[in-house]
Amino acid sequence: MIIVLKPTPNKEEMERLITWLESQGVLVHASMDLSQINLEVVGDTSRLDKQFIEALDVVDHVQPIRRFERCTDRKFHPEDTVIQVGNTQIGGGSLTLMAGPCSVESEAQVVAIARAVKASGATMLRGGAFKPRTSPYAFQGLGEKGLDLLRVARQETGLPLVSEIMDVSQLDLFKDIDVIQVGARNMQNYELLKALGRQDKPVMIKRGMSATYEEWLMSAEYVMAGGNNQVILCERGIRTFETYTRNTLDITSIPFMRRLTHLPIIADPSHATGKAWLVGPLSQGIVATGADGILIEVHNDPEHALCDGEQSITPEEFDSLAGKLTRLHGFMKEL
Amino acid sequence: MIIVLKPTPNKEEMERLITWLESQGVLVHASMDLSQINLEVVGDTSRLDKQFIEALDVVDHVQPIRRFERCTDRKFHPEDTVIQVGNTQIGGGSLTLMAGPCSVESEAQVVAIARAVKASGATMLRGGAFKPRTSPYAFQGLGEKGLDLLRVARQETGLPLVSEIMDVSQLDLFKDIDVIQVGARNMQNYELLKALGRQDKPVMIKRGMSATYEEWLMSAEYVMAGGNNQVILCERGIRTFETYTRNTLDITSIPFMRRLTHLPIIADPSHATGKAWLVGPLSQGIVATGADGILIEVHNDPEHALCDGEQSITPEEFDSLAGKLTRLHGFMKEL
Amino acid sequence: MIIVLKPTPNKEEMERLITWLESQGVLVHASMDLSQINLEVVGDTSRLDKQFIEALDVVDHVQPIRRFERCTDRKFHPEDTVIQVGNTQIGGGSLTLMAGPCSVESEAQVVAIARAVKASGATMLRGGAFKPRTSPYAFQGLGEKGLDLLRVARQETGLPLVSEIMDVSQLDLFKDIDVIQVGARNMQNYELLKALGRQDKPVMIKRGMSATYEEWLMSAEYVMAGGNNQVILCERGIRTFETYTRNTLDITSIPFMRRLTHLPIIADPSHATGKAWLVGPLSQGIVATGADGILIEVHNDPEHALCDGEQSITPEEFDSLAGKLTRLHGFMKEL
Amino acid sequence: MIIVLKPTPNKEEMERLITWLESQGVLVHASMDLSQINLEVVGDTSRLDKQFIEALDVVDHVQPIRRFERCTDRKFHPEDTVIQVGNTQIGGGSLTLMAGPCSVESEAQVVAIARAVKASGATMLRGGAFKPRTSPYAFQGLGEKGLDLLRVARQETGLPLVSEIMDVSQLDLFKDIDVIQVGARNMQNYELLKALGRQDKPVMIKRGMSATYEEWLMSAEYVMAGGNNQVILCERGIRTFETYTRNTLDITSIPFMRRLTHLPIIADPSHATGKAWLVGPLSQGIVATGADGILIEVHNDPEHALCDGEQSITPEEFDSLAGKLTRLHGFMKEL
Repeated sequence: MIIVLKPTPNKEEMERLITWLESQGVLVHASMDLSQINLEVVGDTSRLDKQFIEALDVVDHVQPIRRFERCTDRKFHPEDTVIQVGNTQIGGGSLTLMAGPCSVESEAQVVAIARAVKASGATMLRGGAFKPRTSPYAFQGLGEKGLDLLRVARQETGLPLVSEIMDVSQLDLFKDIDVIQVGARNMQNYELLKALGRQDKPVMIKRGMSATYEEWLMSAEYVMAGGNNQVILCERGIRTFETYTRNTLDITSIPFMRRLTHLPIIADPSHATGKAWLVGPLSQGIVATGADGILIEVHNDPEHALCDGEQSITPEEFDSLAGKLTRLHGFMKEL
Repeated sequence: MIIVLKPTPNKEEMERLITWLESQGVLVHASMDLSQINLEVVGDTSRLDKQFIEALDVVDHVQPIRRFERCTDRKFHPEDTVIQVGNTQIGGGSLTLMAGPCSVESEAQVVAIARAVKASGATMLRGGAFKPRTSPYAFQGLGEKGLDLLRVARQETGLPLVSEIMDVSQLDLFKDIDVIQVGARNMQNYELLKALGRQDKPVMIKRGMSATYEEWLMSAEYVMAGGNNQVILCERGIRTFETYTRNTLDITSIPFMRRLTHLPIIADPSHATGKAWLVGPLSQGIVATGADGILIEVHNDPEHALCDGEQSITPEEFDSLAGKLTRLHGFMKEL
Repeated sequence: MIIVLKPTPNKEEMERLITWLESQGVLVHASMDLSQINLEVVGDTSRLDKQFIEALDVVDHVQPIRRFERCTDRKFHPEDTVIQVGNTQIGGGSLTLMAGPCSVESEAQVVAIARAVKASGATMLRGGAFKPRTSPYAFQGLGEKGLDLLRVARQETGLPLVSEIMDVSQLDLFKDIDVIQVGARNMQNYELLKALGRQDKPVMIKRGMSATYEEWLMSAEYVMAGGNNQVILCERGIRTFETYTRNTLDITSIPFMRRLTHLPIIADPSHATGKAWLVGPLSQGIVATGADGILIEVHNDPEHALCDGEQSITPEEFDSLAGKLTRLHGFMKEL
Repeated sequence: MIIVLKPTPNKEEMERLITWLESQGVLVHASMDLSQINLEVVGDTSRLDKQFIEALDVVDHVQPIRRFERCTDRKFHPEDTVIQVGNTQIGGGSLTLMAGPCSVESEAQVVAIARAVKASGATMLRGGAFKPRTSPYAFQGLGEKGLDLLRVARQETGLPLVSEIMDVSQLDLFKDIDVIQVGARNMQNYELLKALGRQDKPVMIKRGMSATYEEWLMSAEYVMAGGNNQVILCERGIRTFETYTRNTLDITSIPFMRRLTHLPIIADPSHATGKAWLVGPLSQGIVATGADGILIEVHNDPEHALCDGEQSITPEEFDSLAGKLTRLHGFMKEL
């Protein structure tokens, strides 16, 4: 719903209206269009009495919007959201290259990989400290210690960090992590999403294994409804009946999300396929389809990785691939 | 891995062995078979040096078990697990009927429904206080207040309660809830599962929307690995391409889980179909296939329910259905 | 669309109307309700000019029906369709037990199995002569010779036959086969469906591996649109991401099809699971959910079967199961 | 199985061996490697007695190959298969652009579209004469007449034709159609595949709605086992739970098929998405991932198309897209 105010409205009355609207459980954004002030009302607007609102002195008229009363909707926010992280940005025409190990194993490992991928053109370092594993007996990550090692790698290279949070209780530990990742299994962990909406670090939401576009967007909406507008979407493959690959990359989600929402959309070919030899060709497809970035697992010793070695490429392979992707991204802009 | 001890082993040495094993990150169960003591070792046994263990004085020999070194495995625990809840029990040949509203709305509502379903033969009251909703703008449940109303209904009827927890931080609120439910969206919220493994209330784990049997069992394993053996599995339908129903009930999971594990298995035809008129025939199928119980949404005013009215049956319909299911369950025992 | 005629309409004019309607590519059924004659028009009625029809002398008025202008629709044919096959019938409250080998291998084999299942209560013999196999190098069935052996078994036992056709060109060979089966892979082989609509043997359509309820019904509609009203639906499991079972039985299809259509609905737990030990419990669930029958693979030597041995039960197991299912079916009628 | 012959084997004995092998139901390809003759034996080799074969005078030894005794396997045929069609070729580094209407509607329509897409760079004309429609009441295509109109368009433009066959009985009608398409619904219509294996026109097999990579390849194997080596694979999207798109393009199949088989692989973004506005970005992704070609629906009046208008792009849009794809394909070769 958009409430179009009369020209030069009385400020006090306008603020009273906003306060009242918020007490009805909706979100209000005031936007100025030329000399015109509009109040964009997001959320469950079905309980609001439109006639009552239109009868107020400050209100010119009310414009209902049928389906899309949402923060994530491109209709409310036609320009691309661009997220500044350290000295790099996500969205807005740039190509973000997030690279690093599935799991942080040691200082030597993570620093070596960070240096290598930085040299090859990576713009962010990804690394898991807390690992969601199907089995309780599998390696669960280094935890807090792993985050510390990531900080060392950031210090050494200047690369901003992206790492996965698994529970609300870990929020304090992530205070200085540049982008907080929500994993596929937690895409509908609503308490976690709400908590992330109340803090100010950018949040990257991986698509759930069988989530629809609608559900995925609604998870972003949970974060944005809390006041945090810095959300990144990450396609990481959906579950299908195919067993030769770990998941099935749904590349259509890239142009589809581009149309539905203003949020940046990136893709993760490593998890989507589970096979290192597929990362190259799929990364090319992802860039040519128009993604804002790629998340790639890079390990200096894939055969002995504690987690997901089969899908990690080596720093040498990343070096070659990053160059290709950068050139391809440049070419696509001119196409 | 099973460590077969020598006859009449030295107690101190045995305890030293157990302490050492636990320090290696595995679980140890001592079982007595005739005069023979076996130590069942569960978890990641791959790091244990079998030759080292066999060289100990108290040890006769070590028997590796290939695939199933798990608490949930029927091989380790051939008898059905039976869970005592208030004056009723789940598993062991009984038919558990959990009934109640999707969402607790008011004292009048939940008490009226509780009385009605109790009179019809329900053995437990289900009711949602915290509701995981796809949209942040949908009704999110009464929260803490909802749990209080459930307690009132328990007081009035004596029915034990089952209600859904959504986050580790809510654990204190659920201290006296008889069975704590983990919803489908949280099936792989591992921090929550670990926390539930460290407390002593029974836990009911709903199958994730696209979870395999293996993953579902592993979520139960997370709880059991923490020391809590009281786990119930609940089939609630999986996501398929069919759009006429909300989900697709995978009835095969009932006999399959019966074979793989000793844990009780129940089914929820309300969420599995999303349509009240399907609850009756599917409940009959579920009982005839051998489930330990059924979870059914019952609402005294489905058309005005704040949540999932379309799939709720009325107390009158439940009365008729509960009678049928009880008679069918009796008949199946004789068949 | 229903064309309600005026009382005692002129016969010639009525026939002219029917002829004209059929020339427009739709099907017309005349039904008499008290002294009232209605013309039920099925198919693409969107091209018919309702005002033109209503202006005719014999027509009282035209009643459009929005979504369901279909032969398969229960709205047009509220009573259950009952199909007479030999001295048995399918639908109408009876329980059809189709049993036999996946693939006919020899006279000795098929006759022995036929005798055994007949003695145990089977009402029809199933057996494959033409086998659709994923690999061109797998055993493709005995073909015409296999049909001959089935005829011998029918002669010996009196059991009517059901066998799968794979192509229009085989139609002549199936002239005296009592029920012609269309396999899951051919569910949308429209030329085959059309040809089966032009002959008069009953047709059993297995649900495609990823077919929706709607598509499955439309395949039945293809047969019925050709004039053959004797169609049976057979649920045989859909493809999901679960790998422990061959397919996933969608038991909900039984009550759902019961509501949407008047055609008999049976289920095949052998193909749905791919495991002999699951056939028993699922058959019980299928009967209790209200199916008109069950299709079960029975083999006298499952370990050496040329096809699908893993999912075949033995004649002894069938004997025990058939007794249980018959008693359960009787019990459900009284419930 | 590879039978390695002795140097300079006796020709008569070799031919006797080949004749005998073929009588055992397997396929034999003789290949010359330097002065060495190998017999590659494809099909069910499990029944062949290896010791018996090795005892023959002409045989040096027998080399069993574990999983892949198949014509489609890249192991047997390491070079890419290149298919010559008219004056164009499919595979071998070229980019095939198949474009045209979903359904042939009239001479004016198909000739106009053919001229337009030819001018824009299309290398083949696609057009449906026989249309597989879910509903028997939907437009079923112009049939034989439609093929005639396609021939006119070929005459006018020189573009080779690709059109879908629906049944063995139509084979004569397709004698001069340059590439015969097998639709997704017929991917496992084995009688049709066998018949296509016995004729000599190239065959394009669309992937079934829920077919695995393995099943899809096996359908190609059915054609090749009959002696026709000219097979093209076409990815057209799989069925998932997403409802915003018609299907889900599985772009991973492109590099995966490239590795498993030597056959050309192309993709159809029109059917994969069902939405015209997605065809552009996905086509870019398809080309960048390494496909041999693209199949695109082009209609001069999408809003009034008799079939699939929503997913057809206009000749103007195709003109712009074809230029981009050609430049992108050239760029990828240099990358």
